[in-house]
Amino acid sequence: MTPPARVFTSDNTAGASPEVVEAVARAAAGPAKPYGADDVTADVRRRLCEMFEHDVDILPVSTGSAANALSLAALTPPWGSVLCHRDSHINNDECGAPEFYTAGAKLVPLGGDDAKIDPDELRAAVRHKAGDVHSVEPSVVSVTQATETGAVYTLDEIQALGSLTKEAGLRLHMDGARFAGAVAALGRTPAELTWRAGVDLLSFGATKNGTMTADAIVVFDRSLTPELTFRAKRAGQLAAKMRFHAAQLGAYLTDGLWLRNAAHANAMAARLQDGLKALPDVGLLGVADANVVFCRLPQQVTERLLADGYAFYHDRWEPGVARFVTSFATTEQDVDDLLDAVRRHAG
Amino acid sequence: MTPPARVFTSDNTAGASPEVVEAVARAAAGPAKPYGADDVTADVRRRLCEMFEHDVDILPVSTGSAANALSLAALTPPWGSVLCHRDSHINNDECGAPEFYTAGAKLVPLGGDDAKIDPDELRAAVRHKAGDVHSVEPSVVSVTQATETGAVYTLDEIQALGSLTKEAGLRLHMDGARFAGAVAALGRTPAELTWRAGVDLLSFGATKNGTMTADAIVVFDRSLTPELTFRAKRAGQLAAKMRFHAAQLGAYLTDGLWLRNAAHANAMAARLQDGLKALPDVGLLGVADANVVFCRLPQQVTERLLADGYAFYHDRWEPGVARFVTSFATTEQDVDDLLDAVRRHAG
Amino acid sequence: MTPPARVFTSDNTAGASPEVVEAVARAAAGPAKPYGADDVTADVRRRLCEMFEHDVDILPVSTGSAANALSLAALTPPWGSVLCHRDSHINNDECGAPEFYTAGAKLVPLGGDDAKIDPDELRAAVRHKAGDVHSVEPSVVSVTQATETGAVYTLDEIQALGSLTKEAGLRLHMDGARFAGAVAALGRTPAELTWRAGVDLLSFGATKNGTMTADAIVVFDRSLTPELTFRAKRAGQLAAKMRFHAAQLGAYLTDGLWLRNAAHANAMAARLQDGLKALPDVGLLGVADANVVFCRLPQQVTERLLADGYAFYHDRWEPGVARFVTSFATTEQDVDDLLDAVRRHAG
Amino acid sequence: MTPPARVFTSDNTAGASPEVVEAVARAAAGPAKPYGADDVTADVRRRLCEMFEHDVDILPVSTGSAANALSLAALTPPWGSVLCHRDSHINNDECGAPEFYTAGAKLVPLGGDDAKIDPDELRAAVRHKAGDVHSVEPSVVSVTQATETGAVYTLDEIQALGSLTKEAGLRLHMDGARFAGAVAALGRTPAELTWRAGVDLLSFGATKNGTMTADAIVVFDRSLTPELTFRAKRAGQLAAKMRFHAAQLGAYLTDGLWLRNAAHANAMAARLQDGLKALPDVGLLGVADANVVFCRLPQQVTERLLADGYAFYHDRWEPGVARFVTSFATTEQDVDDLLDAVRRHAG
Repeated sequence: MTPPARVFTSDNTAGASPEVVEAVARAAAGPAKPYGADDVTADVRRRLCEMFEHDVDILPVSTGSAANALSLAALTPPWGSVLCHRDSHINNDECGAPEFYTAGAKLVPLGGDDAKIDPDELRAAVRHKAGDVHSVEPSVVSVTQATETGAVYTLDEIQALGSLTKEAGLRLHMDGARFAGAVAALGRTPAELTWRAGVDLLSFGATKNGTMTADAIVVFDRSLTPELTFRAKRAGQLAAKMRFHAAQLGAYLTDGLWLRNAAHANAMAARLQDGLKALPDVGLLGVADANVVFCRLPQQVTERLLADGYAFYHDRWEPGVARFVTSFATTEQDVDDLLDAVRRHAG
Repeated sequence: MTPPARVFTSDNTAGASPEVVEAVARAAAGPAKPYGADDVTADVRRRLCEMFEHDVDILPVSTGSAANALSLAALTPPWGSVLCHRDSHINNDECGAPEFYTAGAKLVPLGGDDAKIDPDELRAAVRHKAGDVHSVEPSVVSVTQATETGAVYTLDEIQALGSLTKEAGLRLHMDGARFAGAVAALGRTPAELTWRAGVDLLSFGATKNGTMTADAIVVFDRSLTPELTFRAKRAGQLAAKMRFHAAQLGAYLTDGLWLRNAAHANAMAARLQDGLKALPDVGLLGVADANVVFCRLPQQVTERLLADGYAFYHDRWEPGVARFVTSFATTEQDVDDLLDAVRRHAG
Repeated sequence: MTPPARVFTSDNTAGASPEVVEAVARAAAGPAKPYGADDVTADVRRRLCEMFEHDVDILPVSTGSAANALSLAALTPPWGSVLCHRDSHINNDECGAPEFYTAGAKLVPLGGDDAKIDPDELRAAVRHKAGDVHSVEPSVVSVTQATETGAVYTLDEIQALGSLTKEAGLRLHMDGARFAGAVAALGRTPAELTWRAGVDLLSFGATKNGTMTADAIVVFDRSLTPELTFRAKRAGQLAAKMRFHAAQLGAYLTDGLWLRNAAHANAMAARLQDGLKALPDVGLLGVADANVVFCRLPQQVTERLLADGYAFYHDRWEPGVARFVTSFATTEQDVDDLLDAVRRHAG
Repeated sequence: MTPPARVFTSDNTAGASPEVVEAVARAAAGPAKPYGADDVTADVRRRLCEMFEHDVDILPVSTGSAANALSLAALTPPWGSVLCHRDSHINNDECGAPEFYTAGAKLVPLGGDDAKIDPDELRAAVRHKAGDVHSVEPSVVSVTQATETGAVYTLDEIQALGSLTKEAGLRLHMDGARFAGAVAALGRTPAELTWRAGVDLLSFGATKNGTMTADAIVVFDRSLTPELTFRAKRAGQLAAKMRFHAAQLGAYLTDGLWLRNAAHANAMAARLQDGLKALPDVGLLGVADANVVFCRLPQQVTERLLADGYAFYHDRWEPGVARFVTSFATTEQDVDDLLDAVRRHAG
């Protein structure tokens, strides 16, 4: 058995914050209106309106993939294309959920360092065969904030992609599975990083950062809400006892828990990064602004860490490359123990 | 505000059983493997194997509609038809989820009393234009146990429909959103009522009967498991922190909670039914074997109950018809108070 | 082998008008722009604009099912419903093409005599659960002119259904697989029978009435044209050498061929009907305004006709019911010979 | 107006062979069974069985995109991936038809010279994340013969890709929009180039090479025929008067017309290529084994050719690159005139 402290495979292996658990327990008492007409859901909406400084609608869903795929389906016709980074989750890790929900739209993979979309590639892609009936029609840009590699788009970068998107008449989706980590890293307001930069729909991730089974779509363009609601129902994503998703989100948004958890996870990744940087045999890959650290590890180090009971992905992207993900539940001791182990095995 | 005790709109307005809440809290501690590879999910599977006396696979999902639509998608090709009762949930209340998940299969509505499929209609339907390329191909039969009107198929009835289905070479799905209520009402084993009668896939409902956001597909024909898993992932139904769905189901299955809750809900419906039967102005419609009671109410009674703060559906199926649904959370006092109110207003 | 003159199974067994063949031969010479940018297609559009007294767009397609399914896909969202007669071709004879093209919209079958939608049923259906997220959303009404039983909606009837549709905010599609027969029977203008009555898209049938493999969508609401064109391309319905579909349609529309063919087919059906009416053992069913005749035949008559080499559908709708379909290629002699045979066998 | 002889945009601008026109005219007389049950369609099947030395089924369709998309839908589940060249028609030029027909499968683009799939890339791709539920499942390989750039896979190359495909347990589709050109170029039998190398389904192109609106799926794995037929009906691709598609194909296959036309088109491309090769300012790109020639042209040459009335694609793939496509209808004089013009303008 992997000792708890040695799990660095993904932030989805962590449990849930105590505040979230307590909120769920509170929500269990007494009757409530179903399908999101309850008070707990209304409260979450109010909190998000305030936090985003915008009159938003929300749609709690049970997974991040559902949030992404529903959002894309509302933003592109079936004959449209979704411009995204080639390393993005929607392109690689959702088994074609976007294609399923959109009735067959096409994901067009773009390049760029640190899993951020290269603006020049985007500039070409938004116009590529636009209006040509023989080709899918550029319709949506989807950016991931923070990215798959733990990098974070700066405000300038998001604004630049947003401008390119909007000038070309496309819609903008943000996969915010780790949105909290990005906000914590940048010190910018949620509004600046989303609708003020042109984002129409945000997949607001929470599951990786403290909730159990609750993410949400935050709807900045509220004309999309009816369509999203029909699509969610039809996808089996409109929970009857919605209050239980909402209770998780409510606790997550209360007293800054979401940012506190994310800042902690980021700090643990930074601590790990700093420690690894000092080791001659380990090469950091990219910069972990958020809670994902990629590095090159000598094979013997990898093998011995595994033998110690450490769990992490390795030799998956390319040989010799390992990934460590921290979470709100990672402790300083966990990180220091890992660094000790790497140091010992590399020696 | 509706006083809690006066909500009879649906069993989906109830909260969750304390045992379920406690299990979720326990599951929140420490890391666990994601996507169902955790110990809690494995334990649920073991319990279901034992309970169904069969080597089953399971797929926890977040809604009953997802359970139904995923099951149907695995059982019919897109050009197939799903034979179901015209009053069934899949036909009327899921906004086309089956059509979405199956990529456009067709639901063929059949008649029958108490929302049970009439065997003669089924006998004709399973062969209707079979093999004719101009018509959808009969592929699946879907039965709802207990039915939308609170009736329960007897073992003989299920076996008869199962035989018709299997002799014609079709697959059999059971929508068991209220399966516990049916088992409690019949005193038959889960095995007899499902795979022994030919059921290939069961939507095992739990949310209406004590869990929060967890239902499951129980897979009797395990050759379907890989397809179901790919489809679930692609539908955004493969939860990363699956343990939280599984914890709810685990508690639900422990020490007979699922049957206890259902038996209680049934008993409350029977108590209500008995009370209403005695009233000259109220006409019971059908027989509530499970926890749904349909009756005719004089208009003034309906109006005065609403004025009292009672919540229930009325004038929705036809004018003058009302529906009362009990749940595990309904008390004898709640029922007696309601009966008193009806009596008073009818007097 | 069935002698040519004895085939009454369907108007789709007839060949093609000589004018159509000649036009195709003419179109075969020299290069032309592909995908409908050619002069022949432009000429067909001009002819249809004139004929419909409206600035229409056209989309030639290779089958009537494609015309119907593409039209419906442009008029309903996936979560919408298509209100149609229960005996309509889209509901029974296209193997779920509408469900496929619409990504899973639901066909809601309505009743009515002579396969015409009953206005009272439609009045209820257009509002049924409108705006209810748990149910498919009423979105399109599809009428078939002439109907599956050879009846024709009068102008008043079409206007009444059109008004109901438009007042409820739905879109109107007309399946005109036998539109020419209806126009010929009614003596009304194509404009009156379509857009003036609210029709948004018409499946303009030609294949059954003189062309080889060419039908067309006539687009009255031209805002739908871009979507239809993308959908057609994506469905493999945007022919590279479109001129060959267009040439068929051009000849069909020249010098009134389309109406002449239809009037002839109708006259042959009327002749058959008149002859059958005089026979005591034969019961006509409904009124054949167009070219389809339903009747009850004694079993021995059916058997002996088949033995004579006659081809027609029988015992398909119900025992003892036979259908005879005439076409532009049916001769008076063919009809008289059939009547003689029936008379002889019934004697 | 572009003079006929100066159209080199695509082989889809050519008309039809006289033999094809005559066959269609012959087919127009008298009744025939619909939906492919006619004698003409049966005759085409017999010819193809003989030609492919295999008991094949056939499915005539109206476009090459329909042939491709139907084939792929029968070979991959919705959660599968289709491995194809990044420059392939299915990936770039069908507006997502494969995604539509497959209900959202994913096309995975691979590299390789001359638009041929690189075997090393394929070797990696067939195993990439196979069995991983988070990723689409490698399911089909689709090769284009001849390729988009006019190159032709040698028999060895096809066999190598076929072996890789079959060893990995995937299905093999061939887009043969220009299959005749490949056979003519290679001097190999149709059997060697298809099923003997592992091809399960062939999109047998004819429209670009002499027919009007008729291509066909040739089914080597006949267990796929029922599914293909249901899918074709549902896609509006099962023509009622199928004899008219079949008549075109019958003439195309008679007396070697298909190979004669293709050999001529290839010879015209070779003549053009030889001529261009001699010009110092023109750079040939790749080798045109079949009837597509890519080259670099100085900008003034392009401009002057256009001013002369020549029609061809230029500056579409990259600046300075032009494409000339010959067809069965191109004459030696057409080619020589074009070469003269290029020479004159380059001088």
